[in-house]
Amino acid sequence: MVRWFDRTPREVTRSLLRARTVVAEGDRVLLQDLEPRLDQYLGQLLALQLVVLQQAGQAVKDAPTLAAKANLVEALRIVSTRYRDLVRLLPRDTDPLRAMEPFYASSERFAKEVAGVDWYEQVLSLHVTTGLLTDFFVAYGGGLPDDDRDAVVRVLTRETGQPLLVEELQRAIVANPRLAARMALWGRRLVGDTLLQMYLAVHGPADAAPGATRRLEPAFNDIVAAHTRRMDALGLTA
Amino acid sequence: MVRWFDRTPREVTRSLLRARTVVAEGDRVLLQDLEPRLDQYLGQLLALQLVVLQQAGQAVKDAPTLAAKANLVEALRIVSTRYRDLVRLLPRDTDPLRAMEPFYASSERFAKEVAGVDWYEQVLSLHVTTGLLTDFFVAYGGGLPDDDRDAVVRVLTRETGQPLLVEELQRAIVANPRLAARMALWGRRLVGDTLLQMYLAVHGPADAAPGATRRLEPAFNDIVAAHTRRMDALGLTA
Repeated sequence: MVRWFDRTPREVTRSLLRARTVVAEGDRVLLQDLEPRLDQYLGQLLALQLVVLQQAGQAVKDAPTLAAKANLVEALRIVSTRYRDLVRLLPRDTDPLRAMEPFYASSERFAKEVAGVDWYEQVLSLHVTTGLLTDFFVAYGGGLPDDDRDAVVRVLTRETGQPLLVEELQRAIVANPRLAARMALWGRRLVGDTLLQMYLAVHGPADAAPGATRRLEPAFNDIVAAHTRRMDALGLTA
Repeated sequence: MVRWFDRTPREVTRSLLRARTVVAEGDRVLLQDLEPRLDQYLGQLLALQLVVLQQAGQAVKDAPTLAAKANLVEALRIVSTRYRDLVRLLPRDTDPLRAMEPFYASSERFAKEVAGVDWYEQVLSLHVTTGLLTDFFVAYGGGLPDDDRDAVVRVLTRETGQPLLVEELQRAIVANPRLAARMALWGRRLVGDTLLQMYLAVHGPADAAPGATRRLEPAFNDIVAAHTRRMDALGLTA
């Protein structure tokens, strides 16, 4: 399982970026029209699952009550099982570490950005980033060959810890209504950071043409709408 | 799932201790002769699984390489799945939180004692405490009714992350031989703390009769022997 890499992350990233194209339809890009390579798609997804997984681990540790801890353990079980199941979808000759490696540094930076200062921010972050990333990778996976797409979507949607997180967040906000304002602000910060991560997943950091973000915006509309509904369910302004 | 408790932890612990007896055979206690109540047995076990789980989460986060992180994620998946499967073995009318609650404070103290100062100590701790606790609860579970015992042993032995942890520890010690001396000392500290936790699981804190530890020692011999083999496999003195 363990191998060391003969190329630097920068070299690997550069070669991936050369291979990447973005399909535009008029001035509109449809995520499902992109055709990611399976190993690159899963490499990105796995690297981001590692971020979510570490958030969940921290949230278990910092949980203020035993009840909250037990709920978070279940969320952690779900994300760690999902990680294992996604690894299994890699092509047989693809090392999971090699697939993840080009995206790892960027996902670690993302992990720091969305870490939060306390348990409440951690749990909202876990809820918001998991929701956005799942919706994004389900849509982006639309460009994979049918069998791969079906397998990926099945793993991403099989189990969800979201109701447990909602339960914890709702209880926290009811117990301390002043938390709501901070959580709403934190949610906005999270959606910004996560959209950027999604943008980089599609374009790579090199493609920073001024029109690119605007062209991709419509593709993100559904994803942001689902985020707004998640925030509404918590009584928070998105 | 979430309920609040109408008794203090101290009251619950006291009532559990009154119900607990230790069977001595001459001056020898056999763990399998103890007959724990299923809810108490699982409550203790679950509370300690929470400790192991949090160690694994921290070890994922602090892993020095992506390869190590991936191995630790698999260990984390195994312990979080084990936790879920053990919860399912509780009697239908038993709330998992209520079952764990009397043992939670003690297990949190235990978590602090075995936390370690860096990633290497965390991983050895995860390896050593999981090994000792699994062996102990398999033996202690010998006193449960047959069906319960079989179900518990099946969950405890179905999957193990131990080879992954051994791989990481061996690699670390080969890369830095000076680590061995510190790891051996840390291993001794861990076995002491974990034996005490096992002792408390059987006796409860109130039964501190001078002869009690000596009477239980033979029951722990096999468990300590297995620990010594684990340390040997790492090239460390137990």
